[in-house]
Amino acid sequence: MEATPASVTKLIDELSELPGVGRKTAARLTFFLLRNQNDLAERLATALHDLKERTRFCSVCYNITEDDPCPICSNPDRDPRVLCVVEEPLAVIALEQAGVFRGVYHVLHGVLSPSQGMFVENLRIGELVTRVRGGDVDEIILATNPTSEGDWTASYLLTQLHPLGVRVTRLGRGLPVGGDLEYADSVTLTRALEGRETI
Amino acid sequence: MEATPASVTKLIDELSELPGVGRKTAARLTFFLLRNQNDLAERLATALHDLKERTRFCSVCYNITEDDPCPICSNPDRDPRVLCVVEEPLAVIALEQAGVFRGVYHVLHGVLSPSQGMFVENLRIGELVTRVRGGDVDEIILATNPTSEGDWTASYLLTQLHPLGVRVTRLGRGLPVGGDLEYADSVTLTRALEGRETI
Repeated sequence: MEATPASVTKLIDELSELPGVGRKTAARLTFFLLRNQNDLAERLATALHDLKERTRFCSVCYNITEDDPCPICSNPDRDPRVLCVVEEPLAVIALEQAGVFRGVYHVLHGVLSPSQGMFVENLRIGELVTRVRGGDVDEIILATNPTSEGDWTASYLLTQLHPLGVRVTRLGRGLPVGGDLEYADSVTLTRALEGRETI
Repeated sequence: MEATPASVTKLIDELSELPGVGRKTAARLTFFLLRNQNDLAERLATALHDLKERTRFCSVCYNITEDDPCPICSNPDRDPRVLCVVEEPLAVIALEQAGVFRGVYHVLHGVLSPSQGMFVENLRIGELVTRVRGGDVDEIILATNPTSEGDWTASYLLTQLHPLGVRVTRLGRGLPVGGDLEYADSVTLTRALEGRETI
């Protein structure tokens, strides 16, 4: 269309590939960037370029890192005998923000979901088994998401890890702190009842 | 935080500056880009770089363009005597998609809004007056948005254009096609009643 220059259409096309960004949002973002006086477009371009250029997977835990092994794996104050298995690097960030876990991580990079084309060989499951077999691990915390796919992945991991004779736990289920009983769904309430604690 | 590499944090920071993008969304987009196999991050970086590198304002209508004058202004099939004044390049795209307007445009790049720091000198209003004074213009369609600020800007433009003896019109107001009377607000209904047509 003659009203839109090729470079504008191009950016709208690329932005539309982002999850949750439709063509209208992409167009609005593009024109926001065109109007922006602080060189945000250029800064974004540099940050995007550096993202893939500078980051890699940690060869120990497969988290995203600039240094290999990552700062968590190479931190002598962390306990390498407690391994927390998560689906995504975002989960590591969430757990680190909580600031209570002092062990190390293993990032699967996904969850078992055959309908989405995610099989055992697409996840870092083989690497986990090798790592546990080769290392001095006391406990593995399965911290997959509390979804049916996350639970299924945890069950599969348990079958693989159980023969290795290591203690396997999972994160507690129940009411989220700050939540309202009135709005809790029945599955969460059932889990909260089953997991009730003596006070 | 040791869990997040600097280049990842950097991109999250930059993405958070986009309108409607909070830190959680920015983090999700960043990790989507990290996982993406099709080099979307690199393609986005190139598109963002090209955006400011290749585009400029058309020296006639101030629309975004790669060539000056823009394809619309330099199209001999378009009628330069009918001038449609819009707030933003996005409005040009919307009107071109409708495909009925065969005149040319003038892009103000904003709307009068003193509280937002948008005054007469921040818009392409002087350029519009000069253009109308110097050219052979029969009609000016004020197509600012149907908001109080858009209406106010149109009123101001009318005071500037009226002395030049040119016909000034504005886009019709009424019910949007495909809309539902039940959901129309009272101001739109009032305008629709005032602007009722004999059939």
